[in-house]
Amino acid sequence: MSSVKISNNMLERIPVYLNYLNALPKNTTNISATKIASALGLGEVSVRKDLAKVSDGGRCKLGYRCEDLINDIENFLDMKSKLNAVIVGNRELIKNLLNYEVAENSGLNVLAGFDSGCTEQWRIGEKMIYPLDQVESFCADKNINIGVLMSQPTEAQEICDQLVQLGVKAIWNFTPVHLNVPDHIVVQSENITASIIKMRMQLKEKTEES
Amino acid sequence: MSSVKISNNMLERIPVYLNYLNALPKNTTNISATKIASALGLGEVSVRKDLAKVSDGGRCKLGYRCEDLINDIENFLDMKSKLNAVIVGNRELIKNLLNYEVAENSGLNVLAGFDSGCTEQWRIGEKMIYPLDQVESFCADKNINIGVLMSQPTEAQEICDQLVQLGVKAIWNFTPVHLNVPDHIVVQSENITASIIKMRMQLKEKTEES
Repeated sequence: MSSVKISNNMLERIPVYLNYLNALPKNTTNISATKIASALGLGEVSVRKDLAKVSDGGRCKLGYRCEDLINDIENFLDMKSKLNAVIVGNRELIKNLLNYEVAENSGLNVLAGFDSGCTEQWRIGEKMIYPLDQVESFCADKNINIGVLMSQPTEAQEICDQLVQLGVKAIWNFTPVHLNVPDHIVVQSENITASIIKMRMQLKEKTEES
Repeated sequence: MSSVKISNNMLERIPVYLNYLNALPKNTTNISATKIASALGLGEVSVRKDLAKVSDGGRCKLGYRCEDLINDIENFLDMKSKLNAVIVGNRELIKNLLNYEVAENSGLNVLAGFDSGCTEQWRIGEKMIYPLDQVESFCADKNINIGVLMSQPTEAQEICDQLVQLGVKAIWNFTPVHLNVPDHIVVQSENITASIIKMRMQLKEKTEES
């Protein structure tokens, strides 16, 4: 991945570009920032700047070669390198993430799951799910980058601490709990309650406007 | 819900406060902004301001009565009023959301699901899932606030258009597609690819720092 600093807003847009480019008809060879901006309802200046940061393939009047631009974005994001991950949580939530192909396509390599509610190992497709008390021996000799936390809220901090001790570098937090971690650990939280609340407030605002 | 304007940052923090307060030991009667800020690793000034916006129950030296503060936050967010929703998508993704109790606890009232891959109705627990072509007749005489979009990316825009025509006020978008909607429609997008990319970039930054 390039070490260019990118803003949070750009970070939100990049996957949208990639998805748009991948969905273009197969016979599209070139595409301009103007066309992308208009199709996605984004400001042309932002799109132009974003693309200039990830690719130097833009040509006056011709725009970008689609194939090259896709490649440049994927290289910029280092998407071809896999991130090793383990998931810890309960049976249903583990199933959910493993069923979600998008995760795998983004370079998340789930090595195994750990189920706090089981005493025997089981499997989903080719992935093994072990009892939670085996997480330590499993992770010991592997380079685990990410711990996906899908546990009950009450055990979230404890499992988080354990994962950090086992050398995990980032926690992908699907619980609604605020996690306390050392400075060098990345926490990415997904908060479904916050999303619902945001929708509520925006609905309210739109109703008041009209 | 109060019509006080609140920032996106506050919107992220509010569900965290609520979760923290609900998890306090049963015998905790009072709590101060200072205590909450320290427990959650947040700035005291922000917490103080946030709480003053949602509750006027703060008392010098005593802080807030926990029970009152929880109530005030829930009232502020209008969490007791239900938002009617339908889910459209494929079988596995619909199951996932319906299994996710958190959604229901936040006042999302899923009336039914619509599965683009089935021709016969089926059920998950008490929820009915119908073939997609029944979405129009189902929604016609109901006040649906939210359409949850969990379809294949290729059909996302089409289904979105259909839901908007049926009177849905907000689209909760779990596909990676950028949706084009009229101005009065709220779109809340969850982007799992963007989350993975964010983690990647932060991991990279932390590695370069150390």
